[in-house]
Amino acid sequence: MCVNVLTLIMAESALEVIPKELRSHPSVLSHSRRRGKPPSRLILDRSYHHAAMKRLDRGWKRGRPDIVHISLLEALGSPLNREGLLRVFVHTFDGHVITIASETRLPRNYMRFIGLMEQLFELGRVPPSGKPLLKIERKSLKMLLEDVKPSYVLALSSAGKPTTLPKAVLRLTNSERPAVLVGGFPAGDFEEETVELADEVLSIDPETLEAWTVTSRVIYEYERAIGLPERRLKRQLEEKPSKV
Amino acid sequence: MCVNVLTLIMAESALEVIPKELRSHPSVLSHSRRRGKPPSRLILDRSYHHAAMKRLDRGWKRGRPDIVHISLLEALGSPLNREGLLRVFVHTFDGHVITIASETRLPRNYMRFIGLMEQLFELGRVPPSGKPLLKIERKSLKMLLEDVKPSYVLALSSAGKPTTLPKAVLRLTNSERPAVLVGGFPAGDFEEETVELADEVLSIDPETLEAWTVTSRVIYEYERAIGLPERRLKRQLEEKPSKV
Repeated sequence: MCVNVLTLIMAESALEVIPKELRSHPSVLSHSRRRGKPPSRLILDRSYHHAAMKRLDRGWKRGRPDIVHISLLEALGSPLNREGLLRVFVHTFDGHVITIASETRLPRNYMRFIGLMEQLFELGRVPPSGKPLLKIERKSLKMLLEDVKPSYVLALSSAGKPTTLPKAVLRLTNSERPAVLVGGFPAGDFEEETVELADEVLSIDPETLEAWTVTSRVIYEYERAIGLPERRLKRQLEEKPSKV
Repeated sequence: MCVNVLTLIMAESALEVIPKELRSHPSVLSHSRRRGKPPSRLILDRSYHHAAMKRLDRGWKRGRPDIVHISLLEALGSPLNREGLLRVFVHTFDGHVITIASETRLPRNYMRFIGLMEQLFELGRVPPSGKPLLKIERKSLKMLLEDVKPSYVLALSSAGKPTTLPKAVLRLTNSERPAVLVGGFPAGDFEEETVELADEVLSIDPETLEAWTVTSRVIYEYERAIGLPERRLKRQLEEKPSKV
């Protein structure tokens, strides 16, 4: 039975501080005053900076930190992660990599999550002292993969070869060090440089699914393929036979 | 092959306006000033009203609108819903039922979702004119089930009989009018009156899973059991054979 750790990478994620070219835009400045922080320390968010983002390079892929938030809640709360069988990284559009310790309990509230991300971009790690739960480095996806050294990299994208999720996950469970890339952005495809880093690009639905849905499904299907639900159930029945 | 519509009910959900007994609490009043709305028109949220909620009846189950938000994003964005095979209701802790049209596209941003819920509780429907996408009524879970008339009601709860999700979903796909209840609250079990409305209470994991994870998984497993991924794939290959 396969019990290999799955590496999940949210790739090209729409999470970054407000880029230089937008910091003097009126809508950014007024949001900065309301938040009481300089624009360079605020997370770009289409909900607040839509007007400023109009002429931003590939703006349609950017400023959606909610995608990372919800996807990470799905990933970190999964039985796979609780069993220590999931490693999670967030690669961002602007070339950072966030490493997340599996025991991290993220804020459920969106505004608190944004505050945490602002702290992370400012200090490079959270919490500021002791064992870091989250750390951020300037790193390309290529460099991250050179660190992780996966034996097989699957990218999930609506532009990929159509298949079903169980078949896609079989490629992961048949690998010794599997990694899966999920796009952490709202629309459009992976950049060519990302596609080149994947062994395969597969599509699991004819329509574009939200990143958090893909994340949740690929983790569940992986659990299912390695027989994790049955193993957890068996352990439960052995531990508390009286409760059943 | 089963193609019955699945009814998903988020039950006892932690979504309500600030209850009367909390409206004069200092933390509520200061939040009310910041938001520029009277407390009676604000959604209860533990992130802002924690201090006020200390002596609230069953406060541990309340004030978590983020749970409904993320769970609904998972439900409404699913292929099952896009195929018209999912009906979604939110039953709230304080005895309301929200009916959600399947074509509803909820705000991804949490603060915008909260604004929408405030509008819904105030006006009873959203949008205010034309076909309602969301409507809210005073209604008990019992009355909702009398309307929906399910042939089988499954409640998912960590206090239920342990099983695996595929086995639990078999009960749904074997029914003509299946309904599943997912708790829309952060901790604790269903109230006794909810348990009594279910034909079975099953647990799909030894640990408590987040409501959005349960929602996402039960929908995916239902899709899988009715062969929806294969059907969607087949349709795609027939429609665009040149793209493959």
